[in-house]
Amino acid sequence: MIPTARKRKLAAAIAKSGAEALLVTNLADVRYLSGFTGSNAVIVMRGGRGTLFTDGRYTAQAAAEVDGLKVVIADQPVVPTACAWAVAEGILSCGFDETQTTVAALDGLKAALPAKLRKSFFVAVGPLIAKLREIKDEDEIDRMREAAALGCRLFDECLEHVVAGATEMEVAMALEYMARLNGAERMSFETIIAGGERSALPHGRATTAKIPKRGFVTMDFGVVLNGYCSDMTRTVHMGRAKAGEREAYEAVLAAQEAGVAAVKAGVTAQAVDQAARGVLEGAGLAEWFTHSTGHGVGIEIHEGPRLGKKQEQKLKAGMVVTIEPGVYMPGKFGVRIEDTVLVTVEGCEILTPTTKAWIEL
Amino acid sequence: MIPTARKRKLAAAIAKSGAEALLVTNLADVRYLSGFTGSNAVIVMRGGRGTLFTDGRYTAQAAAEVDGLKVVIADQPVVPTACAWAVAEGILSCGFDETQTTVAALDGLKAALPAKLRKSFFVAVGPLIAKLREIKDEDEIDRMREAAALGCRLFDECLEHVVAGATEMEVAMALEYMARLNGAERMSFETIIAGGERSALPHGRATTAKIPKRGFVTMDFGVVLNGYCSDMTRTVHMGRAKAGEREAYEAVLAAQEAGVAAVKAGVTAQAVDQAARGVLEGAGLAEWFTHSTGHGVGIEIHEGPRLGKKQEQKLKAGMVVTIEPGVYMPGKFGVRIEDTVLVTVEGCEILTPTTKAWIEL
Repeated sequence: MIPTARKRKLAAAIAKSGAEALLVTNLADVRYLSGFTGSNAVIVMRGGRGTLFTDGRYTAQAAAEVDGLKVVIADQPVVPTACAWAVAEGILSCGFDETQTTVAALDGLKAALPAKLRKSFFVAVGPLIAKLREIKDEDEIDRMREAAALGCRLFDECLEHVVAGATEMEVAMALEYMARLNGAERMSFETIIAGGERSALPHGRATTAKIPKRGFVTMDFGVVLNGYCSDMTRTVHMGRAKAGEREAYEAVLAAQEAGVAAVKAGVTAQAVDQAARGVLEGAGLAEWFTHSTGHGVGIEIHEGPRLGKKQEQKLKAGMVVTIEPGVYMPGKFGVRIEDTVLVTVEGCEILTPTTKAWIEL
Repeated sequence: MIPTARKRKLAAAIAKSGAEALLVTNLADVRYLSGFTGSNAVIVMRGGRGTLFTDGRYTAQAAAEVDGLKVVIADQPVVPTACAWAVAEGILSCGFDETQTTVAALDGLKAALPAKLRKSFFVAVGPLIAKLREIKDEDEIDRMREAAALGCRLFDECLEHVVAGATEMEVAMALEYMARLNGAERMSFETIIAGGERSALPHGRATTAKIPKRGFVTMDFGVVLNGYCSDMTRTVHMGRAKAGEREAYEAVLAAQEAGVAAVKAGVTAQAVDQAARGVLEGAGLAEWFTHSTGHGVGIEIHEGPRLGKKQEQKLKAGMVVTIEPGVYMPGKFGVRIEDTVLVTVEGCEILTPTTKAWIEL
C-alpha cells in the first residue's frame, strides 16, 4: 500500500508550484507514487489523484502492482499519450521536472500541443518528488531497515568465501546468489570486490583477479529488497598488515565514526563531510580521500542529499544517507568503510551495524 | 585501440552540423570514442581530436583505458569544467545532443557562459554519435560475435539447471555465474527466467518461483563482453505440451524465421516487423504480440534502429539488431524466440545460431 500521505504531500507541492497537474516521467518517482515496477510508465498527478500510462507488455503487471491510481494501457508512446490525455481532460498547465526531461523530449511534447497552449502548458517545477523522497516515511524506513539488515547478513556469510586464491568474481557471485535467494530483486549496483592493489580503485568492480595472500579486500555492495536499496562497505585484510596499512585503516575508521557522530537533524551536509575529512586531514591522509563523504539512498542508490564539501543543505529527520570515507593510494592499497544511517532528531540510527573493527583473515 | 575511422567519421558529422566542437556527455558515447568505462566523464571533440574530463576517483583508470584523447582530471563537476575549458580554448560554438541533455543541465551550462556567447554557443545537433554507433565497424562486429557466442554457450550449459522444482533464480544465478567466470563484465540486462504462467510476462525477471513440471520456461539474457552486449531468448518446454502450446511455439518460430529472412540492407525496419507480425496474424495470434519485433544492440542493450510497425528507417549493412517476436496469453503461457543478427548486403548473419527447435525437458 502506498501511504496516502505521500500523495497528499505531493498535491501540496504541486499546488505551491502553480501548475495544475504534474507529469511524472522518472521511473523511481513512478514507483514511489504507484508501486509500479515496469520499465515504461508515466503518471499525470492532479491534486491527490493520478493516472498511470503504460504499454501492452505490462497490462497484467500494472493490474497487480498499481495502487490507488487509474491505469491506461497506451498503444502509442506513453509520454505523448499522457500529455494528450491531460489536454483532453481540460488541464491548462502541467509541471515537469526539468532535471529529468531532455531538451528534445520537451520540444517534442510542446510541438504536439494545440497552438494556444504551446507557450503556457509546460511549467518547469524542478524535482518535486525527488525532494519528497529525500525524507523517508515509516513504510520506507521499515523497508530500508530490512534491506540494510539483509546486507549485513550477506557480509557475515560471505566472509567464508574470502580466501586467498579465490577470484573476486567468485566472492561477488556467492554474495549475489545469497542475496537473490533471500528475496533481493537485484543488486543495487555492480558489486565491488577489490583485492590487493585493486583496493586503491574506489570503484573496483569484481573481476577475475585473485584474492591476495596478503593485503586489503574492499567489499562494497547493496541489495534492492522490496524496492529499496541497501549500501555498505567493509574492508578486510588478508594476512598480516604491512607498514602503514593498519594505520590507514584506523584513520579511515576514526573518520567514518566522526562522520556518523556528526549526523543529526539540522546539521549541514558539509559539516558531516568535514567531520570525516578533518580526521583524515589530521592523519595526513586527506589528499587520498578523493570523493565526498556520502549520499542519500532509497528507491535509487544515489539520491539527495549529497554529503560533500560544498553542500549547505541541512539534514532532516527521516533522511537516509551513507557515511563512507576512504583513502586510495594508487599502486599500493585502499580502504573504505561505509554505513547507511537514518537521520534522527537526536543523531542517527546506524542501519548497517555489522562490526567495523579490523578483520584479519 | 579505438579505430581512427570512428573519430574521422565523427569529425565529418561535426563539420556538417555547423558547430565547431561537440560536447559528448552520454557514457556509452564516451566509451565508443575513448574506451573509458568510468561512471563520470565527458568529452569535447574538436575535429578528430578529443579531450576527456573525469574526476579524481578515475585518475588511474583513465590513464589505463583512455585511447588517443587528452585526459583532464577535474576537481569540479565535469560538464561545466569541460565547457569552461572549451570557452578558454577559444571555441565559439559547441554541439550537444538534445536527446541526452536535460532542460536544467542546458540552462545551467548557458548561465555559466560569458554573456556574449550565451545565445550562440550551444547548438542542438541531435544524436550524432548514436547514429554512427548504429553501424558497427569491424572491431565492434568481432566483439559482438564473441559476446553472442558466449551467450549461446551459456544457454547450452545452463539447460542442465532447468529442472522442475529449481527456482528461476537458481537458473539465473547459475547462468550469471558462468557468464562472469567467462569474462563477462556484467549482464546486459536483468536476466529473464519465467516459468509456467509467468512466461506470459514479456519481462518476467527471475524470481524465487519454481520451474514447473509442465509448461514453458522463457529464458532471455545477455552478457557484456569487451564492452558489447549480447541478447538472445529461447523458450523451452517442461514435460508434454498441452493443447495450443506446441502450435503457439511453432507459430512464433515461423514468425521469427520470417523476420530473420526479411533482414537485408535497404529493407525498412517496418518491413521486417511486418514479416514477423504477418505470420502471427495468419496464425490468429497477432493480438498477443504486444511489442515491436526488435531493436539495435551494441554498447547499449537498446540502440537504434527500432524494428516496429512505424519505423520507416532503412536497414544498413553493419547494423546489429534483434529479431524477437513473442505471444503472451495472460494467465496461460507465453513464448518468445530471439536472435541477434548482423545486417549484410545479401541478408544477415545470425550471431546467435543456437537451435530454435522445440526443446522438451
